[in-house]
Amino acid sequence: MQVSNAEWSQTEQEIAEEVFKRAYEREINALIQTVCEKANSIAQPDDMWSLHDFLSARRHDVDGKYEYAYSSLLFVFAKLLKEGWLNLDELNGLSKDKLAKIAALARM
Amino acid sequence: MQVSNAEWSQTEQEIAEEVFKRAYEREINALIQTVCEKANSIAQPDDMWSLHDFLSARRHDVDGKYEYAYSSLLFVFAKLLKEGWLNLDELNGLSKDKLAKIAALARM
Repeated sequence: MQVSNAEWSQTEQEIAEEVFKRAYEREINALIQTVCEKANSIAQPDDMWSLHDFLSARRHDVDGKYEYAYSSLLFVFAKLLKEGWLNLDELNGLSKDKLAKIAALARM
Repeated sequence: MQVSNAEWSQTEQEIAEEVFKRAYEREINALIQTVCEKANSIAQPDDMWSLHDFLSARRHDVDGKYEYAYSSLLFVFAKLLKEGWLNLDELNGLSKDKLAKIAALARM
């Protein structure tokens, strides 16, 4: 399955940018909420250092995941789909071939 | 001023351990409060990453500062005194020489 050199029409690019941005906002908002909950339940020093470890790991993950490049966008969307930060319907407007590839990758 | 090879009597060691522990608890409790306040005022992603940066820096600082070794304890107490995590009265019972050195180092 060739997924890294797909052509993206202008319309597809606009849809992709919008969906990408929306997934990022969803994930970040959920993360902010989790961070607040963890902070408010700190009872001892170790809880605070655990929060720090958690933030380090999540930052690394988020920084790596949300890189907007058309060469890897099908993989990114598949991952976001798998993790629940977007659903396939939001990608309507992309070619059937792209949608099929994203869905297939998300099942892997 | 010779500060690294002072002899510590049993009584001095007990006072030192108690004061050291108390200062640590004060600083950590203040830090926990600050972390909660920062977490609860997160309004955008950058605020969250700032909290992460803040925690990274504070952890590094705290880990480095609270190392209990008699060879460096006068320096540690001077730093804690300067930063307000203990006051000189709490160190009553240490030799006058030690107290004078701690006070002098704290003014540097």
